[in-house]
Amino acid sequence: MEAFQYYTPTKVIFGKDTHKQVGAVIRSYGFTKVLFHYGSGSIKRTGLYDQIVASLNEAGVAFVELGGVEPNPKISLARKAAKLAAEEKVDMILAVGGGSVLDSSKAAAAGAANGCDPWLFSIGERKPEKSLPVGAVLTISAAGSEMSNSCVITNEEGWLKRGFNTDLNRPLFAVMNPELTYTVSPYQTACGITDIMMHTLERYFCFNADNHLTDRIAEGLLKSVIEAGKAAIENPCDYEARATLMWASSMSHNNLTGNGRDYFMRCHQIEHELSGMYDRVAHGAGLAVVFPAWAKFIYKNERALPHFCQYATRVWGIDMDFDHPERTALQGIEATEAYFKRIGMPVRLSELDIDDTKFDEMAEKCTFFGKRVLRDYIPLGKEEIMEIYRLGL
Amino acid sequence: MEAFQYYTPTKVIFGKDTHKQVGAVIRSYGFTKVLFHYGSGSIKRTGLYDQIVASLNEAGVAFVELGGVEPNPKISLARKAAKLAAEEKVDMILAVGGGSVLDSSKAAAAGAANGCDPWLFSIGERKPEKSLPVGAVLTISAAGSEMSNSCVITNEEGWLKRGFNTDLNRPLFAVMNPELTYTVSPYQTACGITDIMMHTLERYFCFNADNHLTDRIAEGLLKSVIEAGKAAIENPCDYEARATLMWASSMSHNNLTGNGRDYFMRCHQIEHELSGMYDRVAHGAGLAVVFPAWAKFIYKNERALPHFCQYATRVWGIDMDFDHPERTALQGIEATEAYFKRIGMPVRLSELDIDDTKFDEMAEKCTFFGKRVLRDYIPLGKEEIMEIYRLGL
Repeated sequence: MEAFQYYTPTKVIFGKDTHKQVGAVIRSYGFTKVLFHYGSGSIKRTGLYDQIVASLNEAGVAFVELGGVEPNPKISLARKAAKLAAEEKVDMILAVGGGSVLDSSKAAAAGAANGCDPWLFSIGERKPEKSLPVGAVLTISAAGSEMSNSCVITNEEGWLKRGFNTDLNRPLFAVMNPELTYTVSPYQTACGITDIMMHTLERYFCFNADNHLTDRIAEGLLKSVIEAGKAAIENPCDYEARATLMWASSMSHNNLTGNGRDYFMRCHQIEHELSGMYDRVAHGAGLAVVFPAWAKFIYKNERALPHFCQYATRVWGIDMDFDHPERTALQGIEATEAYFKRIGMPVRLSELDIDDTKFDEMAEKCTFFGKRVLRDYIPLGKEEIMEIYRLGL
Repeated sequence: MEAFQYYTPTKVIFGKDTHKQVGAVIRSYGFTKVLFHYGSGSIKRTGLYDQIVASLNEAGVAFVELGGVEPNPKISLARKAAKLAAEEKVDMILAVGGGSVLDSSKAAAAGAANGCDPWLFSIGERKPEKSLPVGAVLTISAAGSEMSNSCVITNEEGWLKRGFNTDLNRPLFAVMNPELTYTVSPYQTACGITDIMMHTLERYFCFNADNHLTDRIAEGLLKSVIEAGKAAIENPCDYEARATLMWASSMSHNNLTGNGRDYFMRCHQIEHELSGMYDRVAHGAGLAVVFPAWAKFIYKNERALPHFCQYATRVWGIDMDFDHPERTALQGIEATEAYFKRIGMPVRLSELDIDDTKFDEMAEKCTFFGKRVLRDYIPLGKEEIMEIYRLGL
């Protein structure tokens, strides 16, 4: 087990109708004015917007609002939110939505508190010294941003997608009512399931020290998500399934499944270039293509193989073929691919109408223009990343 | 899944040599004076005391000290610590030890901050409104107090053992170096293993809503602890095993394994009367006797039986006997009992030189002198509690 720090200060308020408490929760911290940040406006159609406003009014919390956050949130809107938060001197930012709204809020909170362009944090030119508190009312189970230290933003100039991690990014509170996800479409639900699984799998396939306890927790979480995922796709109003996905999304990315490991989110990095380049690609859908391609590229590696066998046997219940462990490993990868298909995800780039035209450019960007290799069982440079894209064709 | 709040603000700093950072950690919060609270003085023999003092001195943190915390920590010493903390106007209490030192520190912190006798919190006559911060350097993997909201104290007048739970009890930080537990005796190690397992099992055997995700996490944790427990008893300096036990102790009691469940720590309540009455009984050893007795009392209950079957098959790998589920359930209980024996725990009261003389008195106390029944699959009143003690003979 590697040394680690674990810090998850976010207060989780989980259960039916909890979103109606949000005004009171905000007041419990002594805050009286917030920036209410949200997405495309679906919260107006579902009535959630009105319920949030009612809760804020009832608690005597004043607010300014900014909607319009898109999937793969853009730096231009985050800059606008930062400016508004600073000008209006709000106490905190209330993010009502999923990972995109949360990440836009985090970037804005850091920008407002430090009085600078939040993109500087994304490209590592500045480190935030403080941030405004961010609170969440979660409406999509996927990104885990509601408890995580990460914030991923896309810059439309050059379509660069970049993240920055700091404990300052961890939300103050997260209100989670699984019922709010009943209206999430099957496709978006499946994208979320994939994202949750990938947050766990990226940490699970770690290339250094073993950590049996974290392995077991990750396997338990994966088995629950696989089961609940099928149930939620079949019956969007299955509370238990929606609750499992929502809570798993948080635990998959608050580092519970990464403690004591040395890991690197390489599939995420490889995918970011995909959805950064092709804005129509949902992050989860991109991951459903990248993971099998990456896994097929790496699984025969002598340190990777035992991990893939453990994954296949413990998570998918596949019998171990001790004479041919690579067959067991491959069966686990194929089971994952079959599951992604079953819940309606693409597993090949062709299903996303993507050919090899941009592989060179994406791989180049993924290496930060030759400035880095991705850490993995073997280092992934431009050639390896291109090969992984090719395996996704 | 029931509604829940999850709040674990404790910053965990985990790994080799981390205790040498404690002075710097304290300074990172801006604190300059602490009450250094510890136990019997074993930390002086092992050299830990000197290392802590060196770290405090190096960071410029002044301290007053109070040792002498005993297992089943006493209110008399906690009162003394509260007085000292208040008089010396310390910024926080640094607990160096295990659960007993932590609980003594928590009681003292609440007493000092609220200016009253901390026993009032234990008996529910007052609720703490604030508390001093408590930080921990952990030396025993067992109680999980380093991340928990609980504090259990014994009053020597009448030998009452009582706890109070509040988020104010959650430590600010916990420094965890598994190497510090290398010197814990096999018996104390086994007591700790039992305590860790019981913190998980009490929540696992919940009598209302299902929660498959939390089930799976609990099962993974139990399997890891069972494996690591054997390894740590066989080789006290097995870092991986000690690390697994230490991290599991925190996760077993920070409510990760209880989220979304309605549960009640009934075996703990029944055991508290045992170690409250017989001060020689270590809490873990008492639990090793109480759990099998309680399990044999309850497992045939129609709502309990499926849980016991799930436990037997998933945690112990026992084949399900679908024609006779009660046989499967009993095999799981027996496997637990056999494991407790193997690691050197008593599993019968006779091994602790306890007969039925005090059963009536203990059961009476456990019902708060007739004022409560324990919540369980069926309510446990005085008669049921006495029957459980009898099954432990």
